[in-house]
Amino acid sequence: KMEGEPASTKVQELHVYEINERDRGSPAYLRLSQKEVNSLGDLVPFSNKIYSGDLQKRLGITAGICVLIQHVPEKKGDRYEAIYSFYFGDYGHITVQGAYLTYEDTYLAVTGGSGVFEGASGQVKLQQLIFPFKLFYTFYLKGIPDLPVELLCTPVPPSPTVEPSPAAKATEPHATIRNFTN
Amino acid sequence: KMEGEPASTKVQELHVYEINERDRGSPAYLRLSQKEVNSLGDLVPFSNKIYSGDLQKRLGITAGICVLIQHVPEKKGDRYEAIYSFYFGDYGHITVQGAYLTYEDTYLAVTGGSGVFEGASGQVKLQQLIFPFKLFYTFYLKGIPDLPVELLCTPVPPSPTVEPSPAAKATEPHATIRNFTN
Amino acid sequence: KMEGEPASTKVQELHVYEINERDRGSPAYLRLSQKEVNSLGDLVPFSNKIYSGDLQKRLGITAGICVLIQHVPEKKGDRYEAIYSFYFGDYGHITVQGAYLTYEDTYLAVTGGSGVFEGASGQVKLQQLIFPFKLFYTFYLKGIPDLPVELLCTPVPPSPTVEPSPAAKATEPHATIRNFTN
Repeated sequence: KMEGEPASTKVQELHVYEINERDRGSPAYLRLSQKEVNSLGDLVPFSNKIYSGDLQKRLGITAGICVLIQHVPEKKGDRYEAIYSFYFGDYGHITVQGAYLTYEDTYLAVTGGSGVFEGASGQVKLQQLIFPFKLFYTFYLKGIPDLPVELLCTPVPPSPTVEPSPAAKATEPHATIRNFTN
Repeated sequence: KMEGEPASTKVQELHVYEINERDRGSPAYLRLSQKEVNSLGDLVPFSNKIYSGDLQKRLGITAGICVLIQHVPEKKGDRYEAIYSFYFGDYGHITVQGAYLTYEDTYLAVTGGSGVFEGASGQVKLQQLIFPFKLFYTFYLKGIPDLPVELLCTPVPPSPTVEPSPAAKATEPHATIRNFTN
Repeated sequence: KMEGEPASTKVQELHVYEINERDRGSPAYLRLSQKEVNSLGDLVPFSNKIYSGDLQKRLGITAGICVLIQHVPEKKGDRYEAIYSFYFGDYGHITVQGAYLTYEDTYLAVTGGSGVFEGASGQVKLQQLIFPFKLFYTFYLKGIPDLPVELLCTPVPPSPTVEPSPAAKATEPHATIRNFTN
């Protein structure tokens, strides 16, 4: 912590990749609107894997639900209200809520957390790399103690071609955090 | 900011009207309980328009979901758990969660925000004017810098007959905030 | 408030029992995955009763939704993402989000609140006593004034056999908080 700076105002950055490796049955697109085009009424529970920003460690998973708000034909995409969590094994979790637009980056609200993220507030930038399989997040966290060194890293610059290291993908012990969420 | 008052304790009021103009296909009442009377199991995704408290500016939209908790026959109404966001164009968004009772005003929790609302906490009073088409909200926000002057105003006193100004309803440039959410 | 200790850092404990007395039509298991085993796509709106930690007072209800994330065969259980509120009558409510595992205790994030819980942050420990009918919660709350004395108590140690006092179960006036949520 910067000297003299209270925990509640210091901003800490945390970088995370979310990758859908198509092995979790996610997303579950529930076409409850019963319309042919995506429409209000559709719901999309989902859960993907998350990796550290340098792609060297498997961290855990995301888990939550997207509420289809609006099909946006001129953008050939959709607006969702997303309500979900990021799970980091023994370190705890971060809860977020906000817009997920399939055609544009957005900022979501950080609404809280547990473990080392207990009391977290702030926001998170969502960048989409390959819809809907690869996303990059930059958290701007306030209200928490210094993040564990293991979670800090220089991120691989986000691009559609990034991949987790083979060891992280295979969840080899040296390439995961402790009790990574699975 | 009041001198000597930390950002985290000052309370700022923000007034917003939410109006369903019946042009967004909202709400989508999903009768998943498969019962004839509204029952636990029913879900209601929704998205309406929001206007400034003086009804002179279109701000954006609401977006989220109501979970039917209980039909309350003696009140001829229903209890919902509401989880949604208020979008304010380039200014960002506010996330809220709490009870929506069709027969009574309630206070919801402000759980976070983005942009100028990053780190917001506090609560918001929900007043229903015409079910479920016209509502008035008073936010009591903490933890954020001074709100943009454009969002502050003397609200039109809430009543069932209030209407947005024709210019705001028509989203004329002088009657919207920048990149108002639509 | 401890002298010299700011409201935002003091941690206050609050103990609550959640009990499903099978009289609210809860939970509503929506098998939207259309699979035989619990799967991503299933949603579970719910609402149960809550009692004080000493089981002498009916406080109110829980209300919200669980999103089935994953069936975990090796634990003979399931992972849910839970998004819900605890209602305490005239005192207000607390909003939470996080993992509900049917086979293990978890910590959820406290994302906000209203009334005496306005501005709350922190986390809450969820202990399951009888799946899914009896749970014990320990809230660790920050950012709020001293809790009302009526909500503080020495909790009955959690066990599968605990029961609310007959007076609390019958919601006799001396065994409820004011305008307890029902």
